[in-house]
Amino acid sequence: MKTIEWDDESNSVKMYDQTYLPVEGKIIECKTVDSLCEAISNLRVRGAPALGAAGAFGIALAAFEFSGNSASELISFMKEKAEQIVKTRPTAVNLERGVIQVLDVCELEGNCVDSIKSLAVFESKKIADEDVLINKKIGEFGQKLFEDGDVVLTHCNAGKMACVDWGTALGVLRSAKEQGKNLSVVSCETRPLNQGSRITAWELLKDGFEVYLITDSTAGFLMRTGYIDKVIVGADRVANDVVYNKIGTYSLAVLARENEIPFYVAAPSSTFDKDAWEGNVEIEMRSPDELKFIGREKTPNAPEDVKVLNLAFDATPMEYITAFITEKGIYEPPFLIEELLLD
Amino acid sequence: MKTIEWDDESNSVKMYDQTYLPVEGKIIECKTVDSLCEAISNLRVRGAPALGAAGAFGIALAAFEFSGNSASELISFMKEKAEQIVKTRPTAVNLERGVIQVLDVCELEGNCVDSIKSLAVFESKKIADEDVLINKKIGEFGQKLFEDGDVVLTHCNAGKMACVDWGTALGVLRSAKEQGKNLSVVSCETRPLNQGSRITAWELLKDGFEVYLITDSTAGFLMRTGYIDKVIVGADRVANDVVYNKIGTYSLAVLARENEIPFYVAAPSSTFDKDAWEGNVEIEMRSPDELKFIGREKTPNAPEDVKVLNLAFDATPMEYITAFITEKGIYEPPFLIEELLLD
Repeated sequence: MKTIEWDDESNSVKMYDQTYLPVEGKIIECKTVDSLCEAISNLRVRGAPALGAAGAFGIALAAFEFSGNSASELISFMKEKAEQIVKTRPTAVNLERGVIQVLDVCELEGNCVDSIKSLAVFESKKIADEDVLINKKIGEFGQKLFEDGDVVLTHCNAGKMACVDWGTALGVLRSAKEQGKNLSVVSCETRPLNQGSRITAWELLKDGFEVYLITDSTAGFLMRTGYIDKVIVGADRVANDVVYNKIGTYSLAVLARENEIPFYVAAPSSTFDKDAWEGNVEIEMRSPDELKFIGREKTPNAPEDVKVLNLAFDATPMEYITAFITEKGIYEPPFLIEELLLD
Repeated sequence: MKTIEWDDESNSVKMYDQTYLPVEGKIIECKTVDSLCEAISNLRVRGAPALGAAGAFGIALAAFEFSGNSASELISFMKEKAEQIVKTRPTAVNLERGVIQVLDVCELEGNCVDSIKSLAVFESKKIADEDVLINKKIGEFGQKLFEDGDVVLTHCNAGKMACVDWGTALGVLRSAKEQGKNLSVVSCETRPLNQGSRITAWELLKDGFEVYLITDSTAGFLMRTGYIDKVIVGADRVANDVVYNKIGTYSLAVLARENEIPFYVAAPSSTFDKDAWEGNVEIEMRSPDELKFIGREKTPNAPEDVKVLNLAFDATPMEYITAFITEKGIYEPPFLIEELLLD
């Protein structure tokens, strides 16, 4: 199964519940926008491209939740639900884009409740299908940057589980492997929710990669001691001046440059936002409990009354990035986002 | 109670079991060298200066474990036990130094089993008592570097619990507070064993500091966004060319320099090792299970078959360090360890 899919029989969204990985490959079904929003908020589904599909499917769910006969009332209802979905996570741009794309098509082309429902399903499936094709193209371009024997550091999960399939950063590594290049991957565990140890390591081991797990703090010293050849990460939103991605990306980028190691960002062009600059994008602050308690058993791991700064993302200035890898090609500095999107 | 103490009534070592913090301030008693070694290996007691005292007390324990009447046999027995103690943790220099100091005094001055036992207890208590005085001096010198209102980042735990009392890096902050300076502290959680969230945050909150807990990955971005005024850490061994300290220290030092933030290392002169260079000091590689499982319940947190690089320490070149704070004063570059020790 793909990371997230529309189910035609039940008109619902099926997805891996990623909070259970790597212990269990649990599949859950969201029949309502509320349950989808809960899944997004609690990172049962996460990763910028996967959130694009989730947002799109959410609008289709909204259409099926509506019980009236008026097309205009349905569109209003979908717009309300759209707002609810977009609010769940503010940093990744793809979520909002998936929502808007489906909503726009329904509003422009739908002329009755039934046609709006069909259009919402058709368009959201199209977004999900295209995501896979785009990732394959990112992989084709990106794999050229990697050589047989490379030891590649990655952070968080920009893999199949962050997309509909294949992956952005990990898709590039998969494409390199398809070309016969033998890569080792060093995966930062990625606190506080450990997407690196729970998801990236799991994905890559299943695909036959050699995977080394490290604490996030270990990455810099491995770079210094010559262990790492290249770094590759995904992105949640590429602004004109910075890349928003999982907290820790900025640190890795600085450490890579300090140690003269290439630092690549793999992302579909849908993650590039020409209207965004550092300062006008909200960085999501998540619950203190993600640090105060640990593991599924929620063992206390810090004093009860400690304050917590749990930023989910950070912003890395362009100067630290060696190249972007998109479905349109490889981009080297200077990065002019607007021109890049016109290509 | 201090972090670690000799108990005259039972001739045993009492200590906080730091693995239970912050949930419980559990005190354990080690009556044998074996149980002390277990406590050191499993980080029930940790931190370079505390390990100095633990090593010293271990030799006293060895003396009381001996049941014969020959002074020379006792010294041989103590030497065997010394080797066992030193092997538990290879990176911090203080452990070995505490062991050797007590052993040397016993060998030189002891002339019967009873006098050796007394000497071992006397000398190990002296080491522990001196550690507190030394830390207070480090604090007196170091506090001058901090100003009212400073937001100070620290990593791991170089506090009371890493020493016999007061602390090195955190001792400096305590001394600054005594001078009426109001400091906020940002504590990196310090994976994989979370000494920052479990111990540093707990210690500092008890002393009335404002404490913010972050994931290790968040430190760099807080530096970039102007949130951090100064960084202070301890050290496990200061070599001629690098500082060995908790994994992640190197990354923080690079990020501090990149953002023009002072980076201070607070350590007693007993942590400076003029015979050490990068390359001749072993960096302890700890169990993969510390990353593969999480929390006291040992919840699986990674695929079973993933490889793990669990380095406990890293090495930070001198160029990244703004100043050392020792009980002898503040040292600025160029750092000539041999001269510094002669002062």
